[in-house]
Amino acid sequence: MEVEQWLHMANGDGENSYATNSRLQEKAMLETRPVLQGAVVELYRSLPDKSTMVVADLGCSSGPNTLLLVWEVIGTISDHNREEEQEQRPPAAAMELQFFLNDLPGNDFNLVFRSLDRLQELTADRRPQYYVAGMPGSFYTRLFPCRSVHLFHSSYSLMWTSKVRDELSRGAYLNEESIYIGKSTPPAVIKLYQEEYQKDLSLFLTLRFNELVRGGHMVLTFLGRKSKDIARIGDVCETWTLLFFCNVWQGLVEKEKLVSFNLPFYAPSMDEVKAVVEENNLFNVEHMSVFESSWDPQDYDTNDDVVLGCSSSGLNVARCIRAVAEPLIKKHFGEAILDDLFMVYASMISKHLKKAKAKYPIIIIYLKAKH
Amino acid sequence: MEVEQWLHMANGDGENSYATNSRLQEKAMLETRPVLQGAVVELYRSLPDKSTMVVADLGCSSGPNTLLLVWEVIGTISDHNREEEQEQRPPAAAMELQFFLNDLPGNDFNLVFRSLDRLQELTADRRPQYYVAGMPGSFYTRLFPCRSVHLFHSSYSLMWTSKVRDELSRGAYLNEESIYIGKSTPPAVIKLYQEEYQKDLSLFLTLRFNELVRGGHMVLTFLGRKSKDIARIGDVCETWTLLFFCNVWQGLVEKEKLVSFNLPFYAPSMDEVKAVVEENNLFNVEHMSVFESSWDPQDYDTNDDVVLGCSSSGLNVARCIRAVAEPLIKKHFGEAILDDLFMVYASMISKHLKKAKAKYPIIIIYLKAKH
Repeated sequence: MEVEQWLHMANGDGENSYATNSRLQEKAMLETRPVLQGAVVELYRSLPDKSTMVVADLGCSSGPNTLLLVWEVIGTISDHNREEEQEQRPPAAAMELQFFLNDLPGNDFNLVFRSLDRLQELTADRRPQYYVAGMPGSFYTRLFPCRSVHLFHSSYSLMWTSKVRDELSRGAYLNEESIYIGKSTPPAVIKLYQEEYQKDLSLFLTLRFNELVRGGHMVLTFLGRKSKDIARIGDVCETWTLLFFCNVWQGLVEKEKLVSFNLPFYAPSMDEVKAVVEENNLFNVEHMSVFESSWDPQDYDTNDDVVLGCSSSGLNVARCIRAVAEPLIKKHFGEAILDDLFMVYASMISKHLKKAKAKYPIIIIYLKAKH
Repeated sequence: MEVEQWLHMANGDGENSYATNSRLQEKAMLETRPVLQGAVVELYRSLPDKSTMVVADLGCSSGPNTLLLVWEVIGTISDHNREEEQEQRPPAAAMELQFFLNDLPGNDFNLVFRSLDRLQELTADRRPQYYVAGMPGSFYTRLFPCRSVHLFHSSYSLMWTSKVRDELSRGAYLNEESIYIGKSTPPAVIKLYQEEYQKDLSLFLTLRFNELVRGGHMVLTFLGRKSKDIARIGDVCETWTLLFFCNVWQGLVEKEKLVSFNLPFYAPSMDEVKAVVEENNLFNVEHMSVFESSWDPQDYDTNDDVVLGCSSSGLNVARCIRAVAEPLIKKHFGEAILDDLFMVYASMISKHLKKAKAKYPIIIIYLKAKH
């Protein structure tokens, strides 16, 4: 299955849209902030005078987070300049910033572009001058000219693979009890998922290396898993397992359609990521860490293990997953099942949360090109 | 009136959309081709090896013409390379192309981005490698970093001004019998239109000069007029005059609303354009000419003065004008009047065409920056 046409977040800004249900991604951005700021200042200080720093956000989606990266980068440079001024150090380069917001062509770029006015108002007193362009296309293809980008950023996107392996989407009964990797998923199927992920990540690194200027940087954040053991794959695959077990599928969709539905998704361990980066040999790992984020985007206390309002939490989680998975499910099964499916799903999530709070592990990796 | 929010072509690809009604713009592109091809080859041959040529289309709109520029530029370089190869001359620079498609943020960029796949299929065997980004924003503001663009192109856009002068939009009864410049428009109002146009064109030239690389080029095509005499302003203002005289306005809209509606538009003479370029003193004029295009986009024979099917021609013309002016009219008067207005308009155009075929004069100007 080619996913380029269908893998994008739910469009618009209605109740079920990604724009309204993307607090999780916003929280990840806060965790990444110190790493990102370090990268921006280092790149900025290395620029020749009167040059342009080019920053690209891969998998920008459409919603309140889409412009967070632009906001962070402008704020970082603006703050840095103010500090330098106060300490009467010589000013850094006079420069301009060019941003590229990338996502698949099905992303709601119109919504993004129409929100730029507001950003311009908010940054009216800030320097440097900046420009924001949209760049449609899969980040598993070339997106930019050689040596033209200083910094790549990607948040909550790289766990999506470029495709589902043909063996799985052909409808053979290989992975009957899951739409991703579940308890009953056979080792051969897990291997297919792993191989696709490794191939895709390696391709991604090679493509970006060619597009980065000499010594350019990348800050990448994506869903992962903490356990090395693929069989104890933990909370990320639990959300998909619960989705699979919604009884809505029964009777409403053909069994063959459900069996041939597998997600173009993989949540890697830190070791798996490190192994691909080392094998690929184009980047140095400057920083790598993992943090946890509650399933519920409205839940800010990740240390507390008790979920207080399980039914509202269930609804919140279901909405987040719907915002992310709706276009894929709609394409495969049609629109009619969506409301029922996610209503049942919300109640299953609530039941699950009564046992204990569930968290997603998020991996941050900061890379510098070995040019 | 600030027009940035509302001046864009009608979205989508339905019967009344710009995408379905933009043959006129396609015909203009064919006339501009020789000039454009000359500019592309000259710039291409002057590039250092392994560099990127950046091309921006200002006012790209959304529809079948939006990717015409990309198609032309790729085709020109591809053909040039083939000729060089056949004559065994040393190959020109190995390069990549980066395109920016610019329009106001209200433009339907989603439609544009979703049509890129088809372009990629059609150009699969062509070199050089190219990338297409979208750049939302008014071309009366800075859009690109300093010295970052090799070639600007703009087709059917520069007759739109950045705003309607406050004096006209305030609702004072200055220009009662027209929404642009008509027979009864007083000289003081004509002067307001002219001043706005001169100010805007001069601003446009200065902004683009800063964004162009040393000696960069611009190829601009826009509606103009042949006569120097503003009182004999001819066919372009006739289309707007007819629109004003549609009886639909009477009764359906308040008189004050109609009086305060003036188009952010100006069709200049060649002399007016030349005077601004010379006064601005940043560009050399390499080429300037005017050609005529029938009002009816389906009419290919501009030399023949007889319109054969006046009623179908009337409908064609009305659709083109609707595709261009609908968002502006909708914003000012609401959606309810649109269908009636353009039905009556079509029949008025048909009557007008029975007298003689009507044509738009189109000005082409090719400029090189004096860096």
